[in-house]
Amino acid sequence: MFIIFDYMEPVTLKNIASELGISVTTASKALKNYPDVSPKTRKAVVDLAKKLNYTPNSFAVNLRTKESKIIGLIIPEIVHHFFSSVINAIIKKAEKKGYLVITLQSNESDKLEEKQIDLLLDKRVDGILMSLSNNRKDLSPLKKIIESETPLVLFDKISKVINCSKVIIDDRKAAYSATKHLINSGCKNIAHFRGPLNPQNSIDRFLGYKKAIEDYKLTFDKSLIYTCEKVTYKEGYNFAKQLHLSNKKVDAIFAITDLVAIGAITYFNEANIKIPEQISIIGFSNWFMASVISPSLSTVDQPGNEMGKTALKLLLKEIKATKKGKKIEYKTIVLPTDVICRNSTKK
Amino acid sequence: MFIIFDYMEPVTLKNIASELGISVTTASKALKNYPDVSPKTRKAVVDLAKKLNYTPNSFAVNLRTKESKIIGLIIPEIVHHFFSSVINAIIKKAEKKGYLVITLQSNESDKLEEKQIDLLLDKRVDGILMSLSNNRKDLSPLKKIIESETPLVLFDKISKVINCSKVIIDDRKAAYSATKHLINSGCKNIAHFRGPLNPQNSIDRFLGYKKAIEDYKLTFDKSLIYTCEKVTYKEGYNFAKQLHLSNKKVDAIFAITDLVAIGAITYFNEANIKIPEQISIIGFSNWFMASVISPSLSTVDQPGNEMGKTALKLLLKEIKATKKGKKIEYKTIVLPTDVICRNSTKK
Repeated sequence: MFIIFDYMEPVTLKNIASELGISVTTASKALKNYPDVSPKTRKAVVDLAKKLNYTPNSFAVNLRTKESKIIGLIIPEIVHHFFSSVINAIIKKAEKKGYLVITLQSNESDKLEEKQIDLLLDKRVDGILMSLSNNRKDLSPLKKIIESETPLVLFDKISKVINCSKVIIDDRKAAYSATKHLINSGCKNIAHFRGPLNPQNSIDRFLGYKKAIEDYKLTFDKSLIYTCEKVTYKEGYNFAKQLHLSNKKVDAIFAITDLVAIGAITYFNEANIKIPEQISIIGFSNWFMASVISPSLSTVDQPGNEMGKTALKLLLKEIKATKKGKKIEYKTIVLPTDVICRNSTKK
Repeated sequence: MFIIFDYMEPVTLKNIASELGISVTTASKALKNYPDVSPKTRKAVVDLAKKLNYTPNSFAVNLRTKESKIIGLIIPEIVHHFFSSVINAIIKKAEKKGYLVITLQSNESDKLEEKQIDLLLDKRVDGILMSLSNNRKDLSPLKKIIESETPLVLFDKISKVINCSKVIIDDRKAAYSATKHLINSGCKNIAHFRGPLNPQNSIDRFLGYKKAIEDYKLTFDKSLIYTCEKVTYKEGYNFAKQLHLSNKKVDAIFAITDLVAIGAITYFNEANIKIPEQISIIGFSNWFMASVISPSLSTVDQPGNEMGKTALKLLLKEIKATKKGKKIEYKTIVLPTDVICRNSTKK
């Protein structure tokens, strides 16, 4: 079934060592590029290992070159415009640099995510890029990556307590700007369709919204907060309906994502509520869809392409440094966001 | 850098063999599950190998279980609603069956696709699911998969000459139905925004369109065929504009995908051309977007979820059969499609 090295007569490190009259330890160190083996011995071991076709599986190749030229990418969801853009940027840039990208979708399951981390470590990828699932509470699988000295860069959905490089946006600031945009256009009673209670970016967007409400002397009203457990179109639609039928005095909605906002727009269109005259709506992410629906959706531009490129750049730097045995300096890069004004909010 | 088995004191097959007083060949055969080794000996070898932590890399695990529990998936594009649905279905079903899915995006590059095939074969995945890039002409990389006896199932974008299982839709029939829907609603001058000249599904959709035009005694007019090289929103927009400014007598458009159709809708909305009163538009794929834009888009429902599930099911069957040394019977499954009538076409 497999194209495999014939194990009938395995060439062992012992064979190589005894052939050259050196210890197994020295032979092993030579293949691992240890500095305390002379270049001459190292060359002899490497040459003989090649000649004898010593364990010609990718594992052995890794040992020789210390690189697999493979990068692992774990994300919560592939069917998601933002992550798709990130993946796309990573794959395109990686290809240019001679790396293949293995993409794994955790499906927001921390168990599956852990299996995927094990798989990538087992396959000895050169580095791992990750955006965490919403359910990640136990951080030990991430620590395992760090302990294995495999470079790790987290992006978008990160954990503050894990010591590694990160690429993020300032969700709180971005949500503040979106809410401020609504306030500046004259809205006074702003509802928030927020995300689940656990993930940091959902918390931060809520806090940014709340801070803008307070800074601009509006009243923060808990009853205007609706929690989308799954952040879906349907939740946006249903909460818009619920809000409308509740007769609450609301003139604007800040939605956690464009998908939720589009659900709300669909409901208001159906109910003949005029957007933005009767209600303003702003989303988050700037998905492609936001520009083509009617009315077109004002939103926060989340730079997926830039995030993918930056995360990969950081990772490649760390892979290079690790290869040279250099110490890695972890960086956290915060990418800027913009409010995009379209027709779902007043000028 | 790696969490690796300590090579300082490698446990070799020889160690295991001598410990048990059997030959290296027998020990190797035992680990490979050869039938000419007694179950008792096999058990002794496997138990000792486990106890000694014999080469605990995934390669050795493969040798023991003959399975990596990993499936490779190569697709042209991740940022694509249809493929996203397929991926999602595959990953969810695979997870239930205990398989991890490695997703690789070929970016419509046949060179990259070939590298990815090599990677998957090198990593000894249990099976490969593939939708071919538009530029795939040389079929030798696919033959390599078959020769390696790794089960392969092609879906959506396939090659007719490769002997393996396939899951497809009948693009010609589906395009025929879409065009027929336009004709039945009273349209007589129907343009087609087609895909590139090479891929089979783009050819088939064109041929289905042409056949409907001919069957219903309309005149096939070559000047009403516009070729989208990249199948983008922008091409849809630009061709709609070109068509409009050309003053050609056209009352309907059949677009190769929803994305192209939505580009056309956007242009006609901007130009104040009424859809479907002045021009009817039908797309292909039934992306989520099709239901939320104004007017909502009539389209052909392409069953991404079903296609992913069916392809995986076929692959798992073949993996099982291969494991048992059984002969595989290749199947080609054609999934049904539906025309979804919305507001961009007349009733």
